[in-house]
Amino acid sequence: MARLTENAKGVYVIAVTPFSDEGALDFASIDSMVDFYESVGVTGLTVLGQLGEAPKLTAEESRAVVERVLQRLDGRLPVVVGVSAPGLAPMQELAEAVMDQGAAGVMVAPPWTIRTDDQAFAFYQSVGEALGDTPFVLQDYPLTTNVTIAPKVIERIIKEVPNCVMLKHEDWPGLSKITALRASGDKGETRRISILCGNGGLFLPEEMGRGADGAMTGFCYPEMMVGVVRAYTTGNVDRAHDIFDAYLPLARYEQQQGIGLAARKYVLAKRGVIKSAALRKPGAKLSPLDVKDVERLLARQALRLQEIGA
Amino acid sequence: MARLTENAKGVYVIAVTPFSDEGALDFASIDSMVDFYESVGVTGLTVLGQLGEAPKLTAEESRAVVERVLQRLDGRLPVVVGVSAPGLAPMQELAEAVMDQGAAGVMVAPPWTIRTDDQAFAFYQSVGEALGDTPFVLQDYPLTTNVTIAPKVIERIIKEVPNCVMLKHEDWPGLSKITALRASGDKGETRRISILCGNGGLFLPEEMGRGADGAMTGFCYPEMMVGVVRAYTTGNVDRAHDIFDAYLPLARYEQQQGIGLAARKYVLAKRGVIKSAALRKPGAKLSPLDVKDVERLLARQALRLQEIGA
Amino acid sequence: MARLTENAKGVYVIAVTPFSDEGALDFASIDSMVDFYESVGVTGLTVLGQLGEAPKLTAEESRAVVERVLQRLDGRLPVVVGVSAPGLAPMQELAEAVMDQGAAGVMVAPPWTIRTDDQAFAFYQSVGEALGDTPFVLQDYPLTTNVTIAPKVIERIIKEVPNCVMLKHEDWPGLSKITALRASGDKGETRRISILCGNGGLFLPEEMGRGADGAMTGFCYPEMMVGVVRAYTTGNVDRAHDIFDAYLPLARYEQQQGIGLAARKYVLAKRGVIKSAALRKPGAKLSPLDVKDVERLLARQALRLQEIGA
Amino acid sequence: MARLTENAKGVYVIAVTPFSDEGALDFASIDSMVDFYESVGVTGLTVLGQLGEAPKLTAEESRAVVERVLQRLDGRLPVVVGVSAPGLAPMQELAEAVMDQGAAGVMVAPPWTIRTDDQAFAFYQSVGEALGDTPFVLQDYPLTTNVTIAPKVIERIIKEVPNCVMLKHEDWPGLSKITALRASGDKGETRRISILCGNGGLFLPEEMGRGADGAMTGFCYPEMMVGVVRAYTTGNVDRAHDIFDAYLPLARYEQQQGIGLAARKYVLAKRGVIKSAALRKPGAKLSPLDVKDVERLLARQALRLQEIGA
Repeated sequence: MARLTENAKGVYVIAVTPFSDEGALDFASIDSMVDFYESVGVTGLTVLGQLGEAPKLTAEESRAVVERVLQRLDGRLPVVVGVSAPGLAPMQELAEAVMDQGAAGVMVAPPWTIRTDDQAFAFYQSVGEALGDTPFVLQDYPLTTNVTIAPKVIERIIKEVPNCVMLKHEDWPGLSKITALRASGDKGETRRISILCGNGGLFLPEEMGRGADGAMTGFCYPEMMVGVVRAYTTGNVDRAHDIFDAYLPLARYEQQQGIGLAARKYVLAKRGVIKSAALRKPGAKLSPLDVKDVERLLARQALRLQEIGA
Repeated sequence: MARLTENAKGVYVIAVTPFSDEGALDFASIDSMVDFYESVGVTGLTVLGQLGEAPKLTAEESRAVVERVLQRLDGRLPVVVGVSAPGLAPMQELAEAVMDQGAAGVMVAPPWTIRTDDQAFAFYQSVGEALGDTPFVLQDYPLTTNVTIAPKVIERIIKEVPNCVMLKHEDWPGLSKITALRASGDKGETRRISILCGNGGLFLPEEMGRGADGAMTGFCYPEMMVGVVRAYTTGNVDRAHDIFDAYLPLARYEQQQGIGLAARKYVLAKRGVIKSAALRKPGAKLSPLDVKDVERLLARQALRLQEIGA
Repeated sequence: MARLTENAKGVYVIAVTPFSDEGALDFASIDSMVDFYESVGVTGLTVLGQLGEAPKLTAEESRAVVERVLQRLDGRLPVVVGVSAPGLAPMQELAEAVMDQGAAGVMVAPPWTIRTDDQAFAFYQSVGEALGDTPFVLQDYPLTTNVTIAPKVIERIIKEVPNCVMLKHEDWPGLSKITALRASGDKGETRRISILCGNGGLFLPEEMGRGADGAMTGFCYPEMMVGVVRAYTTGNVDRAHDIFDAYLPLARYEQQQGIGLAARKYVLAKRGVIKSAALRKPGAKLSPLDVKDVERLLARQALRLQEIGA
Repeated sequence: MARLTENAKGVYVIAVTPFSDEGALDFASIDSMVDFYESVGVTGLTVLGQLGEAPKLTAEESRAVVERVLQRLDGRLPVVVGVSAPGLAPMQELAEAVMDQGAAGVMVAPPWTIRTDDQAFAFYQSVGEALGDTPFVLQDYPLTTNVTIAPKVIERIIKEVPNCVMLKHEDWPGLSKITALRASGDKGETRRISILCGNGGLFLPEEMGRGADGAMTGFCYPEMMVGVVRAYTTGNVDRAHDIFDAYLPLARYEQQQGIGLAARKYVLAKRGVIKSAALRKPGAKLSPLDVKDVERLLARQALRLQEIGA
């Protein structure tokens, strides 16, 4: 399988992990989910992320999920695997395993204990060394990790850690961060790495405007990210915003922590992408009032999409 | 002036604090801002909040701002004043001063050192005692304070701290919290206090659906909150969503921490509500790219509002 | 092997994990270390704790360490294994494996995301369920986990989670916590579980005075914990303090985060307990000035022990 | 009054704030406390620190405390005043007031929202500007502020913020930080500023060995800090350790958060330094078991001091 490079573009969708109502892995739904993501035009898949419920899987299950996804894709799309772990050794262990299986690269978030610029740099330097020639994605997600990485620290990582090929940009607010990183790349001060944006796509049109290469995030309608990125890339900014605006009310609802993932799985199940909407325990569950909210948003969204002809 | 009670409803807008470009208080803009808020139909004003740049004011300036707002309103609308402080004594000192000036009530956020349910309760119990008969708003804002207050702790505060008359609901996600609090109120287990919602109104229609009484938040178009609350209150749920959706892209942009307040002031200045968009130092400033983003959102919003006839 | 129960008493030493200078597991040193701990009179061993560098081990290595320790002990002393993990499934996976190998019980710290009383309780309830009939130790270590668990939450866990048999008491300050828990146990309101104290033994005599059953912590002279607990248990309070005071200057030095573990391993290597003082990367290393500090403290400690005839 | 400079040395004791049992300021006890501190040989006083219960005072009370302390000292010893505040304007307001009253300098801790090196630097740069020519102490206290400031950031502050004349060193662990700062000062890369150490003096002999100029901290026996600093400064390292070791068991006990200050005030009241041991609400209170602990430590300490002839 081709490895992830600095030139990655488009939409890497954060895949959910399908479970049965009882909490067992649902491999048939992995297949249908992979088919669905492919059919709507994503560029790649990211598995074992936070919103893939990765911490709830055993080591064995983690590998089984990756294997099934890779099998189903059969090399048609690249797969990035989240390998964040409390220490370097287990991270390295998982990374080696999934790269052997055929992953294109791995993704690593910083541990919450990091407090200074040098600590953040040192962490990613040791990650780079531990991973050898495996390309990796720096996951910059302060809202969950509680670690803020300044643009100049990311630039230093880009300079000194050659296998860091992508930033999963999820700082918040973060538009100026993209601008700063692109400025230093444009001046030739640093390698130009790929920047794919997260946060459920909630700032995607503006992020594209700042020089992002696409999205790496999840949403029950990945059509939104695909549509926005395509429209933006072909210079149709207003169309990108039209598509974005149509999906925004639901995307916003899905960005609620905890309940958001339950909403995503609810819609994916309703759309027939996966069989059960269940999260593995411990996990949130939609209340009847939540379901009513989601249904109203879906109905309004359908109307709006019709209006804009999307 | 009438005091704040459990029956408060509608929109209490979080007022910005207008400064000159040099950082001095701009009292003329306080007047025009108060007039503007009144003209768009808000129910009350909240001053000296976080987004009112309260921590940047001296004690003397804080009182001057409150005085000017009260003077201009001349009793036509109630004013709530943020009095959060590192200790009870300075909080009490400010609360007494502003209540003497004619405020309707005060608002208190928890200190970030709180870690357990009992600590949260004990804090608000001591606040209640320190404030005597001054009614106060419990500001529940985990994203900024880092303190999560469980619904049952809020219920305990409602039961045992009689001068807690309102919840500024800003937990995130928080829809189920409103549902839980309303359930216990409906069963008669606790007083029914007022719940006004924050977070820039980003979940306002759904919050109204759960039993909120309105909004206490800021946005450069308070017409959004006023419109949504009115439509919802009169049973016109779809209209509420139409209005909300039209403003959502900009409201979302304004919710970015730091830069969001700069965007809010930029638009308020552009609308002639305040003279200068400047934040007092240290404060964010919009870059030319940020301005371009905001202008595009304003243009699209104007079109959309026209389409829905608002 | 006998399982851990509420009646556990004495000193469960937190074992270090010996590595070669190059960072490989040093199994010969595991043997000599186990022999050493046994020779100085500890009651049990705790392995794969934070200060056993557990997060730096792969899953395979973790099991190899546990196996070697159990082999060497051959059932003479009970072994508790740290199994904290980002999710329930990997925790359960490791717990099953080590219990099958012959461990006496496991230890679980709370994830740092916990914020309210109910979240803390719910976490340990789900841990209890996931572990089935495996007895576990609740590790209450706010300084590292950032989670504060109020005494009444621990009481609720004791009441409703029957396989919670021990508290590793490491709150700070925490003397009143022991007093509170013992009071409710003495009144028969809750099971009386075992309380072993951590924090490097820095408050051990006072903790014994409040009703603790001993220590579960590490120090390069476990003779200190053994001596204090024995003296206290036999009613010789002043002797307990004499022993404690003699070791306190070094124990205090070893309590420094990061560098403390390097100091512990330095002394253990100097004493011939393990071959290399190296921490696995990333890990602190003593500077020449640190070594000078430790050597002075060792020399002074030797004199003081002589003076008190210990 | 002479202003604080980079040459400050010795012991600046963190003064407690004496209250009556009812919580009123006890000015007579301020006088006796000031006399006591002077009599035991401290070099200066620091008032309105965290452990001076500063956040519990109104603005008016804060100034009254400073005024009384300055009056009683009548210029014989320099006074540093804690002026940390949520914003620059109120900090500046208090700083100006106390410098006019005759303080020698002020002390500023970072707000807990700081996350990156540049944010920390920018904060202290704006503090330096806001304070004009008032010399200030950088309070580096991660355990309470949750902000870690790397040595190189402190060096940058030293270089670019000329009125930063002292570091209150309270990082933990922090010995290598002193070493790093002294190394850059010795090479002439940065100004050599004064470093006074905190943390209740728990690492004072080692800190002196790394190049600290003394202590700025509190303890119910300031004789410890005075004795250790004097002995160390006159080259009598072993004597410094003897004195330190004699006081260490009590100093350790007093370092417990919350209850520690109650213990300090209990002993100061017992010694006749202040009239009441009460903390202003909300504040911890010693239980009978705590008192028993402290009394035992006091009795043992008296014996030990006799043995070493101190």
